[in-house]
This record gives sequence, structure tokens and C-alpha cells, in this order.
Amino acid sequence: MTGLAILGSTGSIGRQTLEVVHNLRRRFRIVGLAAGHNVTLLEEQARELSPSLLWADREGDYLQQKAAALRARWTPMEEMVCHPDVDIVVVATPGKAGLLPTLAAVQAGKVVALANKEVLVMAGHLVVAAASRHGADLRPIDSEHSAIWQCLWGEDRASIARIILTGSGGPFRDLCQEDLDRVTAEEALRHPTWQMGHKVTVDSATLLNKGLEAIEAHWLFGVPFDKIEVVLHRESIVHSLVEFRDGSIKAQLGMPDMRLPIQCALTYPQRLPAARVKRLDLAQLGTLAFCQPEPRRFPCLGLALEAGRSGGTFPTVMAAADEVAVEHFLAGGIGFTDIPRVIESTLAAHQGTVEPGLEEVLAADAWARRWAEDWLRARA
Amino acid sequence: MTGLAILGSTGSIGRQTLEVVHNLRRRFRIVGLAAGHNVTLLEEQARELSPSLLWADREGDYLQQKAAALRARWTPMEEMVCHPDVDIVVVATPGKAGLLPTLAAVQAGKVVALANKEVLVMAGHLVVAAASRHGADLRPIDSEHSAIWQCLWGEDRASIARIILTGSGGPFRDLCQEDLDRVTAEEALRHPTWQMGHKVTVDSATLLNKGLEAIEAHWLFGVPFDKIEVVLHRESIVHSLVEFRDGSIKAQLGMPDMRLPIQCALTYPQRLPAARVKRLDLAQLGTLAFCQPEPRRFPCLGLALEAGRSGGTFPTVMAAADEVAVEHFLAGGIGFTDIPRVIESTLAAHQGTVEPGLEEVLAADAWARRWAEDWLRARA
Repeated sequence: MTGLAILGSTGSIGRQTLEVVHNLRRRFRIVGLAAGHNVTLLEEQARELSPSLLWADREGDYLQQKAAALRARWTPMEEMVCHPDVDIVVVATPGKAGLLPTLAAVQAGKVVALANKEVLVMAGHLVVAAASRHGADLRPIDSEHSAIWQCLWGEDRASIARIILTGSGGPFRDLCQEDLDRVTAEEALRHPTWQMGHKVTVDSATLLNKGLEAIEAHWLFGVPFDKIEVVLHRESIVHSLVEFRDGSIKAQLGMPDMRLPIQCALTYPQRLPAARVKRLDLAQLGTLAFCQPEPRRFPCLGLALEAGRSGGTFPTVMAAADEVAVEHFLAGGIGFTDIPRVIESTLAAHQGTVEPGLEEVLAADAWARRWAEDWLRARA
Repeated sequence: MTGLAILGSTGSIGRQTLEVVHNLRRRFRIVGLAAGHNVTLLEEQARELSPSLLWADREGDYLQQKAAALRARWTPMEEMVCHPDVDIVVVATPGKAGLLPTLAAVQAGKVVALANKEVLVMAGHLVVAAASRHGADLRPIDSEHSAIWQCLWGEDRASIARIILTGSGGPFRDLCQEDLDRVTAEEALRHPTWQMGHKVTVDSATLLNKGLEAIEAHWLFGVPFDKIEVVLHRESIVHSLVEFRDGSIKAQLGMPDMRLPIQCALTYPQRLPAARVKRLDLAQLGTLAFCQPEPRRFPCLGLALEAGRSGGTFPTVMAAADEVAVEHFLAGGIGFTDIPRVIESTLAAHQGTVEPGLEEVLAADAWARRWAEDWLRARA
């Protein structure tokens, strides 16, 4: 039995991971569960799955007292992931909470299934270097990166000519500039094909998420930015593609369902039957459409790619400024087209660091948040 | 240097193989060349490439006398493919001329790159059994089978849930039944996306070629017929797809260009840069369309699949009857919608043999041709 630690077990990816594990329960054992603040659900999960290790980031006092009754040891995530019974660590915590546990898991040589964008955006250089040093295996859970990863099975990474990331283009892909100025948070949250959290959904509408994914792909697959392209594909059926140097292209397709990339990451190199994943019927679907994202309509994509190319602390600053901007947009404080303005001005003010250590990354993150907040306050 | 024998070197696939080899000339050495009747071109190829073995099926007397001057030994194909200097045999001969040389190459444990449909349709059971017994490696050159093969790199064949063969649907995919009755040979030869020989182009218009390909896929990948589907895809960009049991689908895409699958078959497991293969631009392409083939519009597809399922000598009889029917159609003797009638009546009259040996296969082929000719004569 493969031992799992699931960081972020009460979130969307965490719950879907438990669903996949439930389906394949003879193969996997839940060793550790960690959550943010949803201690009620965490307690329920602990009663059902009897993990030996438990953690909650916030509001965990209550559960900590109960840990003994649940026959679990209260264990911080960085310690949990290193436990000898843990074979695969699923990092499904949002934001930078996944950073330290991921680094710890990689340094312990574990298999790390990554569903967290910030880890590679902020510290890709540190994670990849540590993974290579300690023989840790990084497996993506994001649908786009899982697609690329699957297309690379049996292939030599040196023969990659181009990675083509697909994106639906979000709910505003057909709006003109004037309309974009006026869109509301509520409209931004109506994603056409995927059900996701608010922050990610807004990032899908600005296409900043494709910039983050390009940075992740850069680190996961060791591909330079000039070989990474973004193409809009409104049906979200072709999850991404890889072109090889002989001109052959491989794509991975499927109905939008996160349980598929989750299961792939857990069972690799095997593929096991999936119980409830809906099958794709191409003929019924009819057509698959592709188009270039217009740079003027999606300035966040260009900003994110530029930050990725600059490297160092720039991706961290870009992601932090975006988080601040999206928060303000969701709260109604700024317009949709103000989001790239916040990011651009924050990046312009940043003094970057080359090859930053973890402390420098975290300092850049804190600096960018403060700077973006101050800028927005001065502008209000 | 890898030694090559190219059977059918003066045909379309043979010439494109030589083009690919020319590009990668430091890796490959032409050991043997064999052709049908185009001795002028074969002589030209021999002068340029200095193979040590030569053969021409018809009108070869002239060249045979010249062989010594060309420093080549006149060698029948079955002998040529077994030569110790030959590592890969490219079988690009049309029709059943490829049958005996393929069996000989497989029995000699060579890598066999197959561009000939009839070999697997007529004798798939014999070829696959011999390949497994002698450790020979079968690699497809057909664009559809190459796509499936590439999608299976790094995958376990036991996890295949479905093979989805794509076909353009040919020039008549949008015609109604009445119009189909009236189409001419000239119209049938206008294939929308691929440049191919006359017989193959008509088979593309009837969709019989997808039936032949399903039979080939059955043997190449060990997949039962109920897991093989055909879907129409007019752009000929997605060359075929594989669905796995976890619901994930992989596809191989590219501009229609046979040099890509040829190169894949020669350089596997490596991918090498291809000089002149045109790159695919999805955004420029815009849309990819898929639809079910209507059984009533394409009766040949159903007949071919049924022959495949019946097995034994039925696929041979189906293919032979089709060859006779297409010849008569191209000569203007019968209509387009008569082609399935010839096949259906020949299949209905056939007394099948289970697990036939090579002699029985060849006898069934001869019987089907005679029977189809007689039937057409009686009907005229």
C-alpha cells in the first residue's frame, strides 16, 4: 500500500483526491491529512480515514485536543511529509502555505504531486534543484501540466520543440475593451468550463493563470519560455499539447474533470480504471476551436510571461501583486482592467534578486503585497 | 549506421523514405532496394545510393544485367531482407507483393516498418505470431497507425480502452445517396487532404480504407474490434487517438506529411529534427471538426469491419473483392455505389477458413478475385 499525505485535504483538490483514493482504496493508505481552517470537515475525514498524522493551520486548537481520541499525532506539515510511511505527498494547499512543506518533501526524496501554483512560481528554482539533488519525483496535478506530462511519457525531454498550453479564455474572451472596463466580480466568476475557486477563476478571466502555468511548465519540464506558447481553446477538451522536434505533436484530451490528473499523479506509471470520469465523445462534441490570445485584451498574460523570463524574485512579485489586485476587484474596490495596472506598477517598482533564497523570495512576496496595497490606497 | 532495405523504393512511400534517409544520412545506410516495374528510377537510385542488393519484380532483366556494373547483387526480396547488414526493412510495396518478404523479415527478427496494408489484413495472425516468436519489432508507417503507436510510447497496452481512428471522409462525405450513385472516378480521385495512389484514394472515398486500418490496428496493437472506433475528421490534422482506461485520451497531430511517420519508424525511440516537415499552427487552423460516419453512406466500412471480426480468410476476401471492384470503377465499368455490392456478394459466397496458413490465404485471395470478376461479368 502506498502511503499518502494530503496537504489541503478539505479544499476542492483535496476532496477530489480523497474520492480518487476511495475508488482505489486497496492501493492507498492515508497517513496524514492537513487543512487550513475547515476543522469540521478535517475531523470528519479523520474519523473516516484514520490517518496517523493530522494538522490544521488555523483554528486547530480544538482539533489538537481531540487528536488523541482520533488516534492521530498532531504534526506540522513540514514534519508530516517526511514521515517514513509517506510515499506520495499531495500538495493541494492554496498560496504560499505549500512552499515549506513541498521543499521538505522534496528534500526527503518523496514523490510530490503538486496542485499548488505558487510553489513553482515563487520557488521553482529551489524546488527543482532540490528534487534533482534528492531524487524526488515531481508530478503535476494541474490539468494542463498533467496533459504535458502524459504527452512526455516515453519521450526524451531533449526532443521537445514547443509546449502549447491551452486556456479557455475565460468568460470575457469575446468582450471588447470598453465592456472589459465595466465587468463585475460576479461576471468574472462565471467560468465557462471549469468549477474553481474565486481567485483562480478571475485569473482565468485575465489569463494571468496561463502566465503562472507557463512558469510552472518552465520549471517542471525544463523548457525555456521561448518554447512555451498559449493558445485559446474554448471547449477545454484539449488540455495541452507538446510539439517535438520532428514536427509531431501529442495532445492529451478529456472531459474537464480534475479526478483524472489526480489519479494519474497517484498511480503513475500505471493507468487504472476510473469510476466516474465522464468519457469524451468527439463526434458528439463536433468541433474544437483554437485561436491566439490577443495581447491587448489579456495584458496580464504578457506581464506574467515577462516576469517569468526575468526570473529571480519577479514571478513572486507578479503573483503577489495579482493576489492583492484580485482581492480588491472581488471586493468591488477596483475594475477588471485595473488588475494589470496593479501588477505592472508593482513589477516596475521592484528591484529584483537573481537566484534568491527562500527568505528573499518571502521578503519579495511581502514587499509586493505592501507596495500594491499602498499604490491602491494612494490611487483611491 | 543502421542498414536499410527498402521494398518498393520507387513508389511514393519509398521515395519519401529515401528523402528522410537523405536528411539523416549519417545514421542510415541503404543496403537493399527493391522495386516493381520502374527500373529506370531504380537504376537512378542505385547509382546514387550504392546498395549492395537490388531487385525489380517486373522488367528486371535489363537491370539484372547491369547489377554487376552497379556493384550490386541481384537478390530476391525474401533473401534481401534477411541479409545480416539489414537492420530495418521498410515494406512499401503495394498489395500482396509485401507478404512473403515481410514474413521473411519478421522470421529473421528484423525491425519491420510497414507501409503496406495488405500484409496485416491478409496475414496479420501469421505476422504477429512470427514477430513475437522471433523478437521482431513491427513499426507502422501509415499516418493513423503511427499516431496510435506514438500515443502508446511509455504506456502499457493493457490500459487501452479504445482506439479512435480518424478519417477525412474523402471527397464525398457531404453527398446524399443519389449523388453518390452518379460520382465518377475522376471525382473520387480528388482527395481533400492527402495525395495518394488511385486505389487508396477510392478506398478513402468509400471509407473501406478505415476498415482495413481497423484490421491493421487490431493486429498491431492487440486490440479487439469492439474497442476500435472510426470518427470522421475532415482536416486530417488529428491522425488518430487512444483512450486509456482512466478516461485520458492521447492524440497525435501534425500537418499531413508522410515523412513524419516514416522518420518516426526509422529513428524510434529517438525523435530527430525533420528538415522540411511543415509545422502545425492550431490557432491559424481555427477549428478541428469531428463527426460519426453514417453507416448508410459508407457501407464499405461496415463490410470491412465485419470481415475483420469474422477473421480467418474473410479480411483477405474483402480486400481482394474491393480491389476488383475499384479497378472496374476506375475503368468506368461500374458505379461508385456498386463497390460495396461486389464486396458484399463476394463475402456472402465465401466459405471461410479459421486460422488459415499462407497458402490458404493466397488461395482465398485468388478465389475472391475470380468470384468478383465472374459476378461482375454475369451482371454486365
